[in-house]
Amino acid sequence: MADKKNKKRALDDEDDDDPQHVPFKRRLKPDQSILKTLQTLTKSVQSASASSKTLTLSDLSLSSSCREVSDLDLSSVQSSIERLVIRTALSILSNQGFAFDVPLRTSANQLYVPELDRIVLKDKTSSRPFASLSSVRKTTITARILQLVHQLCLKSIHVTKRDLFYTDVKLFQDQAQSDAVLDDVACMIGCTRSNLNVVAAEKGVVVGRLVFSDNGDMIDCTKMGMGGKAIPPNIDRVGDMTSDALFILLVEKDAAYMRLAEDRFYNRFPCIIVTAKGQPDVATRLFLRKMKMELKLPVLALVDSDPYGLKILSVYGCGSKNMSYDSANLTTPDIKWLGVRPSDLDKYKIPEQCRLPMTEQDIKTGKDLLEEDFVKKNPGWVEELSLMVKTKQKAEIQALSTFGFQYLSEVYLPLKLQEQDWL
Amino acid sequence: MADKKNKKRALDDEDDDDPQHVPFKRRLKPDQSILKTLQTLTKSVQSASASSKTLTLSDLSLSSSCREVSDLDLSSVQSSIERLVIRTALSILSNQGFAFDVPLRTSANQLYVPELDRIVLKDKTSSRPFASLSSVRKTTITARILQLVHQLCLKSIHVTKRDLFYTDVKLFQDQAQSDAVLDDVACMIGCTRSNLNVVAAEKGVVVGRLVFSDNGDMIDCTKMGMGGKAIPPNIDRVGDMTSDALFILLVEKDAAYMRLAEDRFYNRFPCIIVTAKGQPDVATRLFLRKMKMELKLPVLALVDSDPYGLKILSVYGCGSKNMSYDSANLTTPDIKWLGVRPSDLDKYKIPEQCRLPMTEQDIKTGKDLLEEDFVKKNPGWVEELSLMVKTKQKAEIQALSTFGFQYLSEVYLPLKLQEQDWL
Repeated sequence: MADKKNKKRALDDEDDDDPQHVPFKRRLKPDQSILKTLQTLTKSVQSASASSKTLTLSDLSLSSSCREVSDLDLSSVQSSIERLVIRTALSILSNQGFAFDVPLRTSANQLYVPELDRIVLKDKTSSRPFASLSSVRKTTITARILQLVHQLCLKSIHVTKRDLFYTDVKLFQDQAQSDAVLDDVACMIGCTRSNLNVVAAEKGVVVGRLVFSDNGDMIDCTKMGMGGKAIPPNIDRVGDMTSDALFILLVEKDAAYMRLAEDRFYNRFPCIIVTAKGQPDVATRLFLRKMKMELKLPVLALVDSDPYGLKILSVYGCGSKNMSYDSANLTTPDIKWLGVRPSDLDKYKIPEQCRLPMTEQDIKTGKDLLEEDFVKKNPGWVEELSLMVKTKQKAEIQALSTFGFQYLSEVYLPLKLQEQDWL
Repeated sequence: MADKKNKKRALDDEDDDDPQHVPFKRRLKPDQSILKTLQTLTKSVQSASASSKTLTLSDLSLSSSCREVSDLDLSSVQSSIERLVIRTALSILSNQGFAFDVPLRTSANQLYVPELDRIVLKDKTSSRPFASLSSVRKTTITARILQLVHQLCLKSIHVTKRDLFYTDVKLFQDQAQSDAVLDDVACMIGCTRSNLNVVAAEKGVVVGRLVFSDNGDMIDCTKMGMGGKAIPPNIDRVGDMTSDALFILLVEKDAAYMRLAEDRFYNRFPCIIVTAKGQPDVATRLFLRKMKMELKLPVLALVDSDPYGLKILSVYGCGSKNMSYDSANLTTPDIKWLGVRPSDLDKYKIPEQCRLPMTEQDIKTGKDLLEEDFVKKNPGWVEELSLMVKTKQKAEIQALSTFGFQYLSEVYLPLKLQEQDWL
């Protein structure tokens, strides 16, 4: 008996962190057993994607009432613009003046399609006539953006939205105007915004069991040290993805990413770790989708336990309203909510002082999310979110550091994986 | 005559961008001649750094009146903490209670040293006694941070400031408190904040003619595609830098960085391109300094033509006031202001509509900068800044896109280099 007690104390003493987490550490099985669990998950995702074909709007007979862009190559974009300009010229020559037919991108023209699990754009358009005081400026801007994008096609280079704005400040006046028309033009041509070769600033990084080519250079993401590889702004120069990972770990925050990269978590549990460092940017969303589609791996998400964590997960999963015309290319289906979930706060005994009270705005955002279709269709998510709104408590991923700096990588995540504790 | 005119037209026709920049393009000599200019610059920097030793506080007989931290290894930090704790314990055992002696980091205790061209901390300290109502909390926080950093030393891992905060939310209450004491602790021990193994989030990227090791992985930055390599958060795991570059191009903004990375500017003019994407973070500052020191290359800066562009340049060059105790490790001496400079706006005929009026706040910041010692000691900078404040006009790097998307990489920068147009 005394022996047993001593043994227990010795075990506790070994651990220089808070002893509260020891019971959880003890529950961990050998890595081999956790790896088997993961292999089962990966196989099920791969066989599911092999047997089921991705649903499209036309499968649901929605292609006439909804509008979706496709991934076009540069020469298709170029010839689309040329055809559009020729039509416009003919219209002018036949004394009919000209107008652009522009798809409406307002929320009234958006639709969440549960079968697709993403937001799509309906088919309403509005006419943008040149010969009208109210639309002459916008029509001119549209023509100018078409011309600039045509130049990008000819040169085969990428620029940022800011570059585009500066090519004609006098006309565009402020960047919000050229940005908005840029999305209009993508919709008109029926391609993605990336297809126009206009990219946003890069933010995301990736590390782990992934090899891919960036602009012709082969990148091995296991050999990227702690810093990781910056995710390229232009997805069309990314290719040749190969991986021996069992899953993709999508991380909301930089700090958690850093912990996992330094501990080389991907060596213990073969995975690819990716983060956009906060709000998902277009480049990271495209990159995640490409990985998911080419490698057919399960995606597990690690976000803060607050409404914005779930919101971020939803943007990766179902798309943002502003870019709903391109949800097919930007969204990654079937992302699992691994943690930190509201129920984890009690389950993992996160101390009260590491939890934060939700503000009025947080609670409102949480309640709004409960009304969203993409939350409603997942009963587990509804339960978790209801718990959050009820307890009015939130917590960051970093709150786990209260049990020791490496608790996240050494106890919390392995246990989550072992128990298949995702929703 | 007609022939000449035709020839001119043919030349203009070749260029599908604004013809205004053609005169500048014509001034460009062959790359070989520009490369020779750069080689001369590089050699002069290298011979200067070989012949002159870097001045230190003790060279200036300032080591007793100023305080500066050194780059310590983990075991030195560990034993420093242990000695400090033993002293504290002895003081308590001899019935004297205990107090920490903490260097003052307020601006009254800061000094710009022109010979060093950076801000340093003077030697005033304040006592932080445990047995005082006004300082008992701060003293306790200091002891706790010392304990946590000691743990990091034993484990040899890195964490973020946020992680550190979450290890004891009840005591720290908010992150500003643990952050401030962390800097105090670095000062007390006499090491850099990075030596404490507490790092900030990474932001910077690097691309071009540089090979280095990140946490044991060899990274070739010419093979990092367009995305580039994310700069590692912990400089102590960076090493083995080699390069055949002639200079380092320090870029303020992401968009300009992207243009240069896509155009592989570093292949035409061998260089290393680095950006912190806006405000310089500690990791990028440390990385830039390490490159400069190890490779002995000239550093040319490309920033916006506004007071913040110069301010950013000054943070890289002379340090920020908040981290003045560590200016020796964080600052990169002798950064040249390549562009976009206020005088460039007229020289390169940037159209009026691409210039922006300075706000009252901009003008105030500009005037304040004119009073700063590190600006005053460079007459060229004073002249440029005075011009900016006088014309009340600013412009972003991106304003150059008005002459064509690749004007920056194909005309502006090559011409700047050819004309050695840096200050």
